[in-house]
This record gives sequence, structure tokens and C-alpha cells, in this order.
Amino acid sequence: MRRWNGWGDSANDYPLKPSGLTFLQSRLGKASPLQDAELAAVVAKVPKSRLHAHPLIDTSPEIRVRHARGQSLPDWLAMRSGDVGHFPDGVAEPETSQQVRELLDWAIGQEIIVIPYGGGTSVAGHINPQGGDKPVLTLSLARMNSLIDLDKESQIATFGAGTPGPLVEQQLKGKGYTLGHFPQSWELSTVGGWVASRSSGQQSMRYGRIEQMFAGGKVETPRGTLEIPAIPASSAGPDIREIVLGSEGRLGVITEVKVRVTPLPETETFQVAFAPNWDVAVELVRGLTQSRLPLSMLRVSNPEETRTHLMLAGHEKMVSLLHRYLAVRGCGDRKCMITFGVTGERSQSRQMLASCKRRIRAAGGVMIGELLGKKWEESRFRSPYLRHGLWEHGYVVDTFETAVNWKQVTSAMTAMEQAVRDNAGDGEEVHVFTHLSHLYPQGSSIYTTYVFRCSDSYEKTLKRWQTMKKAASDTVVAHGGTISHQHGVGRDHAPWLKHEKGAQGMQIIKDLVHAMDPRQQLNPGCLLQDDQD
Amino acid sequence: MRRWNGWGDSANDYPLKPSGLTFLQSRLGKASPLQDAELAAVVAKVPKSRLHAHPLIDTSPEIRVRHARGQSLPDWLAMRSGDVGHFPDGVAEPETSQQVRELLDWAIGQEIIVIPYGGGTSVAGHINPQGGDKPVLTLSLARMNSLIDLDKESQIATFGAGTPGPLVEQQLKGKGYTLGHFPQSWELSTVGGWVASRSSGQQSMRYGRIEQMFAGGKVETPRGTLEIPAIPASSAGPDIREIVLGSEGRLGVITEVKVRVTPLPETETFQVAFAPNWDVAVELVRGLTQSRLPLSMLRVSNPEETRTHLMLAGHEKMVSLLHRYLAVRGCGDRKCMITFGVTGERSQSRQMLASCKRRIRAAGGVMIGELLGKKWEESRFRSPYLRHGLWEHGYVVDTFETAVNWKQVTSAMTAMEQAVRDNAGDGEEVHVFTHLSHLYPQGSSIYTTYVFRCSDSYEKTLKRWQTMKKAASDTVVAHGGTISHQHGVGRDHAPWLKHEKGAQGMQIIKDLVHAMDPRQQLNPGCLLQDDQD
Repeated sequence: MRRWNGWGDSANDYPLKPSGLTFLQSRLGKASPLQDAELAAVVAKVPKSRLHAHPLIDTSPEIRVRHARGQSLPDWLAMRSGDVGHFPDGVAEPETSQQVRELLDWAIGQEIIVIPYGGGTSVAGHINPQGGDKPVLTLSLARMNSLIDLDKESQIATFGAGTPGPLVEQQLKGKGYTLGHFPQSWELSTVGGWVASRSSGQQSMRYGRIEQMFAGGKVETPRGTLEIPAIPASSAGPDIREIVLGSEGRLGVITEVKVRVTPLPETETFQVAFAPNWDVAVELVRGLTQSRLPLSMLRVSNPEETRTHLMLAGHEKMVSLLHRYLAVRGCGDRKCMITFGVTGERSQSRQMLASCKRRIRAAGGVMIGELLGKKWEESRFRSPYLRHGLWEHGYVVDTFETAVNWKQVTSAMTAMEQAVRDNAGDGEEVHVFTHLSHLYPQGSSIYTTYVFRCSDSYEKTLKRWQTMKKAASDTVVAHGGTISHQHGVGRDHAPWLKHEKGAQGMQIIKDLVHAMDPRQQLNPGCLLQDDQD
Repeated sequence: MRRWNGWGDSANDYPLKPSGLTFLQSRLGKASPLQDAELAAVVAKVPKSRLHAHPLIDTSPEIRVRHARGQSLPDWLAMRSGDVGHFPDGVAEPETSQQVRELLDWAIGQEIIVIPYGGGTSVAGHINPQGGDKPVLTLSLARMNSLIDLDKESQIATFGAGTPGPLVEQQLKGKGYTLGHFPQSWELSTVGGWVASRSSGQQSMRYGRIEQMFAGGKVETPRGTLEIPAIPASSAGPDIREIVLGSEGRLGVITEVKVRVTPLPETETFQVAFAPNWDVAVELVRGLTQSRLPLSMLRVSNPEETRTHLMLAGHEKMVSLLHRYLAVRGCGDRKCMITFGVTGERSQSRQMLASCKRRIRAAGGVMIGELLGKKWEESRFRSPYLRHGLWEHGYVVDTFETAVNWKQVTSAMTAMEQAVRDNAGDGEEVHVFTHLSHLYPQGSSIYTTYVFRCSDSYEKTLKRWQTMKKAASDTVVAHGGTISHQHGVGRDHAPWLKHEKGAQGMQIIKDLVHAMDPRQQLNPGCLLQDDQD
């Protein structure tokens, strides 16, 4: 069963290994966990629903608890503490676009707030009901999870918007196809959610971001049904798809998504190499990316992340041998781990791998090969579970991310890491590390993870996080980065959006939202900080 | 000097070869040219300007004639007949974004219509002044034609929006870079115009459409300056770039464009092969495209285009030998010419070429190689000149294009060709042929050329064209195609835009235009057919 107060299925558990605990204790000091609230206690707090009865809406308390929060750190703390804040007044799980249409018309007519809900995996406060006089209906697409059509000739698949990652791939695999969209949230996040929040998957280098996959679909808006035909390319005016992408529920409810799929690849491996230091690693991966070698994935961890990953991997003896081997080959304490994916036709893949190896060696790097690559592949969707393992020992983990041009990558990363280190308060240490995981000829995403100790209360822990998060966000935009490369804006990032869009860009987004939803009933507070503006 | 009533520089002349004339006469019958108007006669017709004097605005008649029309067939007929219709009341050629700002504020304040003007190469009526009470200012970006900045590390170049193709490449080449955007209009069209009309170049398979190149820039809008930062990728809300792309002057004047550039390729060749018939050719190029082989270009001509190209090439003996050789190898009367570009690193290119050859042979095709590829390369920007050669003999040529999914390619092409054949009227023959030139895993563009005889007057010739164009456009949208894959909407395609965008999509575009330009002073009539809606 899905956890009500954390990530994933409760059958999946990845506790922190003893070596990992020792490592963290040495970095951050010993920590004490905070007390978790029980589900029953939270359910008991849920107020009476303000919604009139509707055959498609469930107003029972538990379903309202289970749809109240996403997966941001504030969400986690809220669920763990039991102080959840606001609950939706009801949850609808329609099965057809027509039912979505009916629910939307009903809600708009009654001045009800509507929050479209995919997998509930937002880490930026996308799906959290806010306080206020108006009742809140959470409209979950969970039951619209089927492959509706597959045009093999044109490689277009049509899915219900609530189809989660595993069901996307499972339904395509039987027919010999893959979408290839693998965000870390893949286990739970949905194709409609990916579109609404402009998601990017681990193998975006081959398959593209969701922007490149999203060919068309259907959106129920307050003004009517927006249908976007799947056309391979068009010069006919502004692209409506690119307005729906990233609309985060503000313009309507995405009900059907047409995506570009590809035949399952003949072969796929993930490979690991090491570079002697960060500067060499960045030059190397920039060169690989700008050479347009069609890798499916490329990522590089900075020295601290490399060290941490190897430490947390367990297998102490093996890892120690690896360290010694790499040191002899010139990759010592400052070494950086590079992971890359080679996917495609057998002969193309062979050539790609050979070409990568040449470049890695020429840069003074060391190829390790598939063994560590397989490790990465096995655990590629595991990171969200790690918060549990840390939490049990009194540690908190969060991440933030951006994308900047190559010219700014190293300075932005350094400043981002320093911002969280400098803002934990109370003289607390923070364990911070970073990787680049989505590389483009123009620049790269920067993904920073930071671990710190719980404070002695939920309030203080949240406050500690808020201070760090604000500093991190200020630093990101000060370096010309986007406030989010892959998590979206939601409510948490909304204050920083203006730095990317500018006053005129913000006004355009406001115009779109206000025209489509004049009374601000669709997910208010997302994207635009102040809807009264 | 640039022709005032046709394409390109008057020093460039590509008359129709005698064999070509004989071929056309056999297909369409003999024809008589219509009488061309003289520039002086047209200049004499230009009415007094309605603009108040402004130091940045030239109101002399000749410059107003030279900015009155684009390159659509109605534009051509208007210029040739001397019945040009409406002229701008003046032309400004600002040198800075600041001057654009000043001109825009001045014009908006005085209820003047503003038409942003790049290279004047529109084939869809983008830059034509309309009748009405308000004076019209054509705002040409011609003097903003410099490379402003090049960030080699991030591969981003910033250009003045008025920089035409040759100046883009020339300024980059010296520094070792290329943009790689080569639309057929490249000689005259500008980087700002490419963005405003969502242009696509001949090598979009490698370099992307302008959408993929356009990283950010500056737009002067009636509400203020919209600055779009160049960020490699972002999940932060709707993409403002994708609203500016295809905005066709309705939202503002693009003054600076940041584009993604690449180092000059190590090697580049264009290769020609033949397939025995259309069905085989389409399967072959679809397979090549969906295999994601990183070719830089791929196009296939249908049998009639293949025949016509070989006929017009001259070299009758050589061509006759080629026909015989190909017939022996299984490519007879129904053969289709395939042209492809192999661009990049030497070793990658070798592998790509080998891979293509394997696939072509496996499909029963015949590789011819670089000789005909070089011919294509030499004449790649020559097509717009061919209208002159035909016109002198009383023939008219025009093209129209779309993009559809693979499933619809052949049926759409067949119907498109039939639509023009059936609608010439008066029992006139039409010589029609087609190629696919921009291929995507999802589908392909379809580019149809049709040649017909002038009628005995300009009016009747225009009427003949209008009937065919309407039939062609109706057919395109009936087959689920975009009303334009690469030419934009302008005024000529505006009636068909609703088929692609739908009622809700059209409303979104209207909202954007009306919010940005409430009094409809920026290029009214483009994109949206009726601005009073």
C-alpha cells in the first residue's frame, strides 16, 4: 500500500547502512529523530467537508488526508508532524474526459477551487489546498491510466493523463515500444503531471524532455475543451502545447496526452568512469555533449557526491579497492564519478561507447565499465526512499536544482552549495553534494542534495529548511539559473519565477491565467504568487 | 541591387533552359507572358504619406514601394502588374533596440499601425499594409544586422534581429561557428523573421528548426521590453519563447535574438540515391528517420518531381545515361530521388554514410553519390529565382506545404496534388510535383510545387491562383495537416489556422494579442483573420 506520509509503497524499504550512518555522524554529529504522527490521529483532525454531495466525489477523511500534500520537505514535515494544514474538501477520481468536464463545470459554477492531481509527487507545493472560504476539490486523474491508442507508423501513443510511469512503460512494452521518460519520481508520477510541470527524465539526452515528447492532447478548461492535434512540426503561430506545458493546473485539467514513442532499443548499458577532478570532469562532459554523441544519459558527480555515493554503496572492501585502484590511475581525493547511458542499435552503441572511452582516456579519466553502471540502474528510482532511511536516524535530506549555461556551471554550483552551508543556523553542519544530470550543448542542470540534522521540533526544523531553501533559491537566480529545471514552480518556487520570466513575461502568464480562469478557481497560488495582482 | 518586383539581386539570373521550356510546353501548352509595370510608374502612384515627420522615418515613395509587398504569388502579381494596393506611409530603419522602443512608443501614441519587417521574404502576406484610416509605419530591422556577442563555451550567439542569413554565417564563420539555419529564403530572410514566423531550414535534421535554436532575446512590446534569458532548459511555467515564436509581429518587435550555434563541422557532403517507387522511398526515408541516424538533411522527391528536376538540370546526354543506368538497376519511370546530408565529425560521418548505403541497398535503392548531391548544394538557394525564368515565358510557379503524421503522408500528398490539378479552371493543365523535405520520427513536411500558365490578364491569373490555393489549403487541413510547416500564417493562411488550433487555441492566441496590443496596432490581420472578433 502506498505510504500516506512518505514515498512509495510501504513494502519497499531501504534503511541507511551502518557505514552510511557512521559517515553522516562524522560529518553532522549524532541526531535524534522526531516523533511521527499516526494516520488515525490525522484522520481524526479532518474537518467536515464543505462540498455538496456529488456522485463522483469522495469526502471521506482518509482519502482527503492522502491527497492533502505532495513530497516537498515541508509536505513531509507536515505529514510526519500531523499538522497537515488544509485538506481538500473532497476527492474525485473521474474515469473519462467527459466526467472531468462535468466536474469542472459543476465546480466552476459553485465557486469551488479545483486542484488537478496526478501522482501527488510534487516537490514544490503544486497540489496543496490553501486556506480560504471556498471549498477545495482535488481532481485526481488516477483512474485515467490506460493506453488509448498507439499509431506505430507515426510512433504516437495516446494515454489517459493519470497513467503513472510503470503503467506507461508496461502498456507500451507489450507492443515493442518505450516512452523513455524516467524522472526519479517515475514510480508514481503521471504523464499528465509530467506535462503540467515540464518534467525531465534521466534519459532525456536520447528521448528528450517531456516538451519534446508531448505531441498533443486534450485539456478541459473553464472555457471549454482544448484539443491539440499531434502534428510533427508547424510554423503556424505560437505553440499551444508550450502554453499547456508548465501550466501546473492553472489553465485546465489535462485529460489525454499524445506522446512520441520509440521502438524498444536493441541494447542498453550504463557505464561508469572517473575523472581526476571537477574541472577535468566538466570539460570532458561538456565536450561529449557538444560533440552531439547520441548518448542516452550523462551525469557527473562532484567530489563530495562521488565520495558519498561510494560510501553509501556499502561493500566497504570493494570500495576501498576501487579507491586505491583509481588513485594509482590518477583519480584521487578530488575524483568525480561520471555515469553515462549507451542506448540504441547494437552497432551504433558499440561505436558510441568506443568514442566515449577514447575521450575519457584522452582527458585522463578512467573507465570502470558496466559493473557500477548496473548498480546505478538498479537503484535509479530509489533516491526518494532514502529520506525514510535518514529520517529514522534524525537526519533530513532535500534537493534543489537549476540549469545554467556552461559558462556559469561551476560558479553557480559552488555558490549554491555554499548558500545552504551558510544558512543552516545554530552552527549546524550541512552535508552538501552535487551532480550535473541533464546536459545540453548550451549548459547543464545542477542538482544539489543536502543533508542536515532535525532540530528538536518540527517548527524549528521547518524554519531551518526555509532559511536554507530561500538562500539557495536566491543564489540560483543570482547566477542566471532557472528556478527549476525539472521540478516545476508550484507554490514554493513562485516568488522566484519573475527573475526568469521578467515583468513582461510574468504579465503574459498572468494574462493567460486570468483569461482562462477569471475567478481564479484552478489551482490558485501556483506559478503566480499573488493572484490579486 | 535588390529587385523591387521579384526575388534577390538583379545580378543573379537563372533563365529557363530550352529543354525545360520544351518540357513545360509539352505539359501545359505554349504560354504568353503578361506585361511588367515599370518601377517609375509604380513610384508615381504612391500617395502622400499620412505620417508626421520623424527623424528616423523615410517617407520617400521608392522606399515605400520597396517595402509594400513580400514574395507570395499575389505579391508578385501585384508588383508585376503595378497594382500594388496599399503602401506603408513610411519606413523606419532603426539601428538600436532603443530606437525601436522610441518608434514603437511614438507610433502607439498616435494610433499608427506598425509592421515589423525583416527581409521582406514572406510568402503568406505577413508584411503587407492593409487599407484603413490609420497610417502605416513599416519598421525594418535591416540595420540591426550584427553579431553582438558570442559565448563559445555555451555556444550562444546574439544577433541583431535584422541580420540576414549570409551575414549570420559570415560573422560566425570567422570564429569557427555556424548556425546551420538554411531556409530557401536564406539569402534575404533574417534571424528575427525566422523567429517571428517559426522558420525551418534545409538542415533542420541536424541543427533543429528555429524553435530549437532560439534561446532567448529581446522584444519591444507596446507594454514594455520583454527580455528572455538564454537558459538551457527550464520547467518553470509556460515557455515565453514559444509564444514569441510564430507571433508574426502581433506581440512586439523582436530586436535581439540569442541562438544556439555549433562549431563548423569537420566534414559535409550531400548524397543522392534513387528508390524504385514512391512507396519504397517513403518506407526507406521513414526508416532512416525513425532509426535516429543523425543525418543533417533528408528529402525525397516523388516521381514527377524527380522527372522534372532531371529534365530541368540540362545535360541531356548525361541525364539520359543516368535514366538508362537506373532503369537497369530497377529504378524506372516511377523512381524517386532521395537527397541526404552527412555532416559532422569525419569518423561519425563515415559510419553514417555506410549505414545509409546499407539501408538504401536493402530497400532496392541505388546510390549515386556526391555528384548530384553537389548539384543540389550549388543550387540550394536558387529556387526562388526560378519564378523569373518561368515568368518570362508566361508560366507561373507557386508552392504550398504542410506537415502530417507518417500515416497520412501519401494520402495527403495525393489529395494536395489533385486539388490544384482540379482547380485551375478553364480546362487548364497544371504541372504538379512534390517532395518531403523535413522528416521527423512522427511524420513529414510535404512541399508541393505547381506550375501553370498565366491567364490573359493579371486579374484572371490571380483568380486562378486563388481558386487553387483555397482548394489546396482546404485539402491540407482536411488531412489533419498544419496550414504551414515552414512559411507561417500571415494573412493568406489565417482563415485556416482555426483547424489546427481549434476554437480554444484560437481564443488563447486572441487573448495574448489583445492583452499585449489592445488597440490592434501591431501587424493587424496577421494570424487572426478578424481582429474585431
